[in-house]
Amino acid sequence: MQNPEYTKYGLHGKLTAQQGKGDELAAILLQASELLKTAKGCHLYVISKDHQNADTVWIYEVWDSKEDHDNSLQLTGVRELIGKAIPILAGQPEKGVEFTVLGGTGLN
Amino acid sequence: MQNPEYTKYGLHGKLTAQQGKGDELAAILLQASELLKTAKGCHLYVISKDHQNADTVWIYEVWDSKEDHDNSLQLTGVRELIGKAIPILAGQPEKGVEFTVLGGTGLN
Repeated sequence: MQNPEYTKYGLHGKLTAQQGKGDELAAILLQASELLKTAKGCHLYVISKDHQNADTVWIYEVWDSKEDHDNSLQLTGVRELIGKAIPILAGQPEKGVEFTVLGGTGLN
Repeated sequence: MQNPEYTKYGLHGKLTAQQGKGDELAAILLQASELLKTAKGCHLYVISKDHQNADTVWIYEVWDSKEDHDNSLQLTGVRELIGKAIPILAGQPEKGVEFTVLGGTGLN
């Protein structure tokens, strides 16, 4: 049931790679998800491939706070992976949708 | 890392309640998430509130298959909760975004 104290920071967004580089982008983001296993406040960092566009990768994130999310971008290893992803993107990444996570099944 | 066998069905969509009924809708969906804990193939069913619109609720789902997702809509209890949600929606629900989940942190 809804636990009023249970409010976490959620973000869902997509990155689109240059044509034919969707798998490469997904692999980079899956590597990032491995690093984030030990990141402070990280509950979910899930990587998916869009059904319509093979070069579009979705990232769904749940963190204890936005601050924890922002701090993770400075983690060694994560910065390098971001550096590997940027050159194969097809243009500027769109800002994802932010929300307050209330709870649900499967969240640890 | 990317496990080629790890492909699950993912869905992310939002429901918008009539004005002032966002919390009521979220509570119904959180009840549904409790029921889905034991649903075949359900890995994630996460409920969130939109940051811009207090009456918009986001649902992020990960299932072993689309079939498992579709079957869950027939589960006793779930059907009744859907029946409770529909009258307080502000119009027709939009179809969510479907994707193939490749993996990530926090998935059980």
